[in-house]
Amino acid sequence: MLGLLRHARRHSTTSSSATATASAAAVPLTSPAFAVFGANTGVGKTLVSAGLVASLLASPSPSPSTVAYLKPLQTGFPDDSDARFVFDRAPSLLRLPLPAGGRATRLVASNHTLFPSPAVDPLPERQDTVVNYGGEEGVEEKALVCRTVYAWREPVSPHLAAEREGMPVEDEEVRWLVDRWLAEEDGGGEVWKVLETAGGVASPGPSGTLQCDLYRSSRLPAVLVGDGRLGGISSTLSAYETLLLRGYDVGSVILEDRGLSNDRFLLSYLRKRVPVHVLPPIPEDPKDDLTDWFSESSSAFSSLKDSLQSFHSRRIQRLNSMQRKSKDLLWWPFTQHDLVPVDSVTVIDSRFGENFLAYKVKDKKIVPQFDACASWWTQGPDSNLQIELARDMGYAAARYGHVMFPENVHEPALRCAELLLGGVGKDWASRVYFSDNGSTAIEIALKMAFRKYACDHGIIVDSEKDIRSEGSVHFKVLALNGSYHGDTLGAMEAQAPSAYTSFLQQPWYSGRGLFLDPPTVYIKNKTANLSLPPSICHDQLCDTCFSSLTEVFCKTRDTSSAANVYVSYISQQLSQYAMSNNSEHIAALVIEPVIQGAGGMHLIDPLFQRLLIKECKNRKIPVIFDEVFTGFWRLGVESASELLGCFPDISCYAKLMTGGIVPLAATLATEPIFEAFRSDSKLTALLHGHSYTAHPMGCTAAVKAIQWYKDPSTNSNIDLDRMKLKELWDGVLVNHLSSLPNVKRVVSLGTLCAIELKAEGSDAGYASLYASSLIRQLREEDNIYARPLGNVIYLMCGPCTTQDSCTRQLAKVHRRLQKLN
Amino acid sequence: MLGLLRHARRHSTTSSSATATASAAAVPLTSPAFAVFGANTGVGKTLVSAGLVASLLASPSPSPSTVAYLKPLQTGFPDDSDARFVFDRAPSLLRLPLPAGGRATRLVASNHTLFPSPAVDPLPERQDTVVNYGGEEGVEEKALVCRTVYAWREPVSPHLAAEREGMPVEDEEVRWLVDRWLAEEDGGGEVWKVLETAGGVASPGPSGTLQCDLYRSSRLPAVLVGDGRLGGISSTLSAYETLLLRGYDVGSVILEDRGLSNDRFLLSYLRKRVPVHVLPPIPEDPKDDLTDWFSESSSAFSSLKDSLQSFHSRRIQRLNSMQRKSKDLLWWPFTQHDLVPVDSVTVIDSRFGENFLAYKVKDKKIVPQFDACASWWTQGPDSNLQIELARDMGYAAARYGHVMFPENVHEPALRCAELLLGGVGKDWASRVYFSDNGSTAIEIALKMAFRKYACDHGIIVDSEKDIRSEGSVHFKVLALNGSYHGDTLGAMEAQAPSAYTSFLQQPWYSGRGLFLDPPTVYIKNKTANLSLPPSICHDQLCDTCFSSLTEVFCKTRDTSSAANVYVSYISQQLSQYAMSNNSEHIAALVIEPVIQGAGGMHLIDPLFQRLLIKECKNRKIPVIFDEVFTGFWRLGVESASELLGCFPDISCYAKLMTGGIVPLAATLATEPIFEAFRSDSKLTALLHGHSYTAHPMGCTAAVKAIQWYKDPSTNSNIDLDRMKLKELWDGVLVNHLSSLPNVKRVVSLGTLCAIELKAEGSDAGYASLYASSLIRQLREEDNIYARPLGNVIYLMCGPCTTQDSCTRQLAKVHRRLQKLN
Repeated sequence: MLGLLRHARRHSTTSSSATATASAAAVPLTSPAFAVFGANTGVGKTLVSAGLVASLLASPSPSPSTVAYLKPLQTGFPDDSDARFVFDRAPSLLRLPLPAGGRATRLVASNHTLFPSPAVDPLPERQDTVVNYGGEEGVEEKALVCRTVYAWREPVSPHLAAEREGMPVEDEEVRWLVDRWLAEEDGGGEVWKVLETAGGVASPGPSGTLQCDLYRSSRLPAVLVGDGRLGGISSTLSAYETLLLRGYDVGSVILEDRGLSNDRFLLSYLRKRVPVHVLPPIPEDPKDDLTDWFSESSSAFSSLKDSLQSFHSRRIQRLNSMQRKSKDLLWWPFTQHDLVPVDSVTVIDSRFGENFLAYKVKDKKIVPQFDACASWWTQGPDSNLQIELARDMGYAAARYGHVMFPENVHEPALRCAELLLGGVGKDWASRVYFSDNGSTAIEIALKMAFRKYACDHGIIVDSEKDIRSEGSVHFKVLALNGSYHGDTLGAMEAQAPSAYTSFLQQPWYSGRGLFLDPPTVYIKNKTANLSLPPSICHDQLCDTCFSSLTEVFCKTRDTSSAANVYVSYISQQLSQYAMSNNSEHIAALVIEPVIQGAGGMHLIDPLFQRLLIKECKNRKIPVIFDEVFTGFWRLGVESASELLGCFPDISCYAKLMTGGIVPLAATLATEPIFEAFRSDSKLTALLHGHSYTAHPMGCTAAVKAIQWYKDPSTNSNIDLDRMKLKELWDGVLVNHLSSLPNVKRVVSLGTLCAIELKAEGSDAGYASLYASSLIRQLREEDNIYARPLGNVIYLMCGPCTTQDSCTRQLAKVHRRLQKLN
Repeated sequence: MLGLLRHARRHSTTSSSATATASAAAVPLTSPAFAVFGANTGVGKTLVSAGLVASLLASPSPSPSTVAYLKPLQTGFPDDSDARFVFDRAPSLLRLPLPAGGRATRLVASNHTLFPSPAVDPLPERQDTVVNYGGEEGVEEKALVCRTVYAWREPVSPHLAAEREGMPVEDEEVRWLVDRWLAEEDGGGEVWKVLETAGGVASPGPSGTLQCDLYRSSRLPAVLVGDGRLGGISSTLSAYETLLLRGYDVGSVILEDRGLSNDRFLLSYLRKRVPVHVLPPIPEDPKDDLTDWFSESSSAFSSLKDSLQSFHSRRIQRLNSMQRKSKDLLWWPFTQHDLVPVDSVTVIDSRFGENFLAYKVKDKKIVPQFDACASWWTQGPDSNLQIELARDMGYAAARYGHVMFPENVHEPALRCAELLLGGVGKDWASRVYFSDNGSTAIEIALKMAFRKYACDHGIIVDSEKDIRSEGSVHFKVLALNGSYHGDTLGAMEAQAPSAYTSFLQQPWYSGRGLFLDPPTVYIKNKTANLSLPPSICHDQLCDTCFSSLTEVFCKTRDTSSAANVYVSYISQQLSQYAMSNNSEHIAALVIEPVIQGAGGMHLIDPLFQRLLIKECKNRKIPVIFDEVFTGFWRLGVESASELLGCFPDISCYAKLMTGGIVPLAATLATEPIFEAFRSDSKLTALLHGHSYTAHPMGCTAAVKAIQWYKDPSTNSNIDLDRMKLKELWDGVLVNHLSSLPNVKRVVSLGTLCAIELKAEGSDAGYASLYASSLIRQLREEDNIYARPLGNVIYLMCGPCTTQDSCTRQLAKVHRRLQKLN
């Protein structure tokens, strides 16, 4: 069966993208499964596997009816065959005296090698045997299924053997076969699975990927076979840390006693973390058949088995309880708790690249789900970047922890500032102000803009005098309807009224802005269309269709009829406001460049934004870009200002900046903005800060992520010539989607593909639950974890997500929407 | 000399607290210094050390005039002596053909063992020799100084040898001697230092502390000797990761070629990170004197030397440039840039427990500085917790990265919520709302309180109707003058006007509160005194002095005359406000319980706050505690509510919650508060959130820190009977301080000791620069990194900082203040 599967797999996988997509399969937790890792090579992984398998088969009820052993990668074959060793030895150990209560058992055992390399000679036969033990025959049936997947002749590391013997194997193949093996079930009885890795925890597999990385997608709990030799404490602890740095849980450590008391030290060091088991010294004489040794080891293996059993039970128990507990203790943001049934809570066991690995309580399975909302638009990592970030985060925590920032400098903050100013801030920004999230970055930006406006317009002459008391000056922002900048009050004040800003939500909100209606662009029936709000008079407008999005962004439109219409609308609004509000000043423009995110994924006509910016600059009104959503390749370019073709005075970044791993925000500003705060008095400084300003962990992650995204050697989506991402959402499929009758509009740009469904009746807007049945189907049947935004559903990937992976997800959505028709 | 030093050291160190205080000494960077670590034992650390030493001595100008080699821990002595090997072999290697340009040299070499264990027999003599090489005699003088510090007879791990031979050694002794060695200088010539560790990177030292932890305080860049054997890729990479998890920079990897191409793999894997050098196979014949091998290896050692030299130069160059670059690119919070001279910028190279390790540009030294402001009050870790957090952070990043929160649950968030509700929220809170920082936690708390108030007072009857438009209802907070809750607009609105809230700083601030003047308590002349504001009529007050702070917190005061005075003041203020403001409702009380932090470290009379809370509860005004500063043992108890003896309805936490490593905040609430948001409509949910809500990294850190602080096995400051911290700031010293004429008042509670200086003239308040000369002296001469808060200077430690360490810092401040008199 597996042979056929492999063939099928080979056909469906594109080789170059295999590692990056790294899609994981469902892992059933009905069968306890463990991966045996070694602190080094030659520490006895196979002995431990055999002992554990025997102990499982021998254990009194409840005991597994089947024990499956898998050696995915074997070198030195067939002289060395760990699977054969387990097949040979485990049954024979059962003839040893059994613990009390052991029942008579008939064991059917097999051993089989799936893919020997062409150099393997002789080719091994499948082995089968039947063993009766423990009393009279036939009372209980058990099975031992041993398998080797890939086997090479030379006794060297698999990456060398694969190269030399002409049998390369891709990671995705190994993972896929392991996943299939994990998914195999016995008809009702309990199955235990033991996977034995090759070499040490960080030994390369056939493609060069380390063992710990190769098996990360299924994140099997580890049995770490430690090293009892001189130096073994060090290699055991280092191996343990390498496993932690891949997100593994270590269920047990087991090691040979070589008279150096390594176990005693490890027991004390790992106390409260991992149980440590000790084996008697392994005879060094190769002629010793180990019968005595296994006999002496049986209590160690039995306690290993017990502690793994208890590890597994505790894990399942906790996972099963988490939905209930979360309903009882947590208070989710943006969530009406009474509308969340307890069994719809998603239990996230881990993340692997673009996927959640979610625990399905009903099926007792860990299921990968594509994180289609990129965890609130934060996510950048593929599975490789995630591991890189983990290592860097560990290093930053150990080197810096956190250190305070004012008047200080540390490498991660400085390097991060350099990369920001050389990237998203290139050619305009000269200063970086760090804070914690998009909302605080906006509050800081507003303070910067207001000060600059006040200076430029001669409003503050005396820093000691508070002009507020005179009631003569009020600052407002110019912004667009549908905009969103965060949930702290200052950020809220800069957005137009909505359900978010009601008295019920924030009694202090007053909406301090002039909010314009923006024209938008969308795709419907394979065409890009312009949509004008009623407030913009459009008699003069000739064309509201475009051949492509490229045309929409083209600067030649600056002289089009639309440009005239826009400029007159903007000027008229500004004059009208100025006339009717004597003491009020428009002191800043705040926009989300190109795409309004939370407002419903609207592509604002870039021409309109470009002209708006120009009008503001003419009036010396500072321009703020809220790039919290749009920054760092979200829209296919590092900064959305590249799409607009103009620069702000101030710009805000967060979300993707750290690779999507910890909160950090930055407000970038031009030197003239900074100058407005300089003087010889502390009172004119920007007195705003947060405890963790420029925290080294966040800056370290940002340094890695910013570089990773734009380096073609780490991000194969980068089109170096144009410094853009390749098209991630297949254009043809997007056009098809846009032609479906139940689709109102599509917006596809960079990592975003948003689809607005046609609303039924009048129940549109945030409160709408229209898209929810679609969302449910995507989550439950297509393994796509999406969240609606009113009537809008969207898919969002990371800057490094492969086109293949995007296409797979988009095709699922397409199929689902077709069916809904 | 070192013998005497050791004796002195033994006297000055209290043994039990040695590990936790872990104070580091200055490390000069004028001498390049590297630590040689091994991927395992027996990988050739000593051969590499000898080869490197020889290469340094042989290198043409500019070359070091002295090479110092140190073996801090040697076992198997004197049969094995790595220092003797280097002493014997390095000079002999110099007789080998030299690179072109080598000058004639006279080398004076010595080898010396400082502390052999009592079991060592025979005791080794000091060795001296003179070698001439490279041409005619006497042109250049060089020195090779080899030293072993501690030596044990048995060839086992130092922790076993130390135990068996009765020569235990504490970590602080080893560190102190290493620091002394690092500080030694040659008269002007360049000195290179090579420290060879024992065993593998994670092998235990004599106390059981791992090598990588033992030497972390000086954070010498590492030379990692990799493993060329089968399995060596794994052990090399694991060892590399263990070093990263301690914050080390690895300057080079070097390993033997054993025909397995380990070097080729490592070269590719570590590309762009670390240079990898390869040595020819080491002869296995013990009779081989290695002359040929060293000869073949000379180019490898030479390239190792070159890459270390270049590593060192790049490091220094970068460190030297950081002040200038930070002035050019960064925008510090709360800082007037023009008042920060470029050479006063603190370059922070790393953190180790409570200390910054700051680079002093002028002296080219890394100097430890006690972080007396606990990095804006965030810091909890001692050096052990820091390493634990690093490991946990790496694990969390690898397991979860970040995953979104609404309607989801993951282990770190759930566990963190459980710990919060079982700790700071015990007996009152039932829900946890996560956000990013103190400011957002407060904005959320206000939204919670307002909703609850509206419900309780029948203000919202229809969720669709916006009562704001009617202008009939305005919500205000009740708060105290001098309070601070963060810098986002909503949090600012809840605090009284100050320099922070001026039009210049935030044109949108209006101060939506009734701000009362609180009575405060302080220590002066060894007595606790009550200070009443003029607005509180105090004719009836009998007593304004207390025997101790315990009396101040005593609940019996609830029936004192002060209680009457306070209640009548509070009632009067509330009635007066209600009468004069028809449409305005006091809809929340917001206080920092017990101590106002940013407002100047004022201890508010707890009786006053208790009564204020009672009055609010009587009026169904929800009570918010801002515990961002006071929470998690900052004041000696887990929550300041324990000191007040009453509970809030809502409470905010951040800062110390994550152990001070990444931003995370939590707003805790009672079930009735939560109920006010429940319905069958999403519109009544709390529509506030941040991208990284409940991010797994932050929650993981919080889970570790919250448990660590209160576990007596990890925090020896915990007084289990009273669940309080021991007195950290010596009471006698605090009293002395309070009696100094230039001290106005002292507040000492938990981890905080604040001292207000007597202001000269009228220039008090935030703008004051009065304390700045004292601060400069503390930073430059006492290695205490303090920051003033107006006229207040303060010392703040972590919950686990030892009393010894606190006393040392406080004594320095005392001395400094005495001198200032």
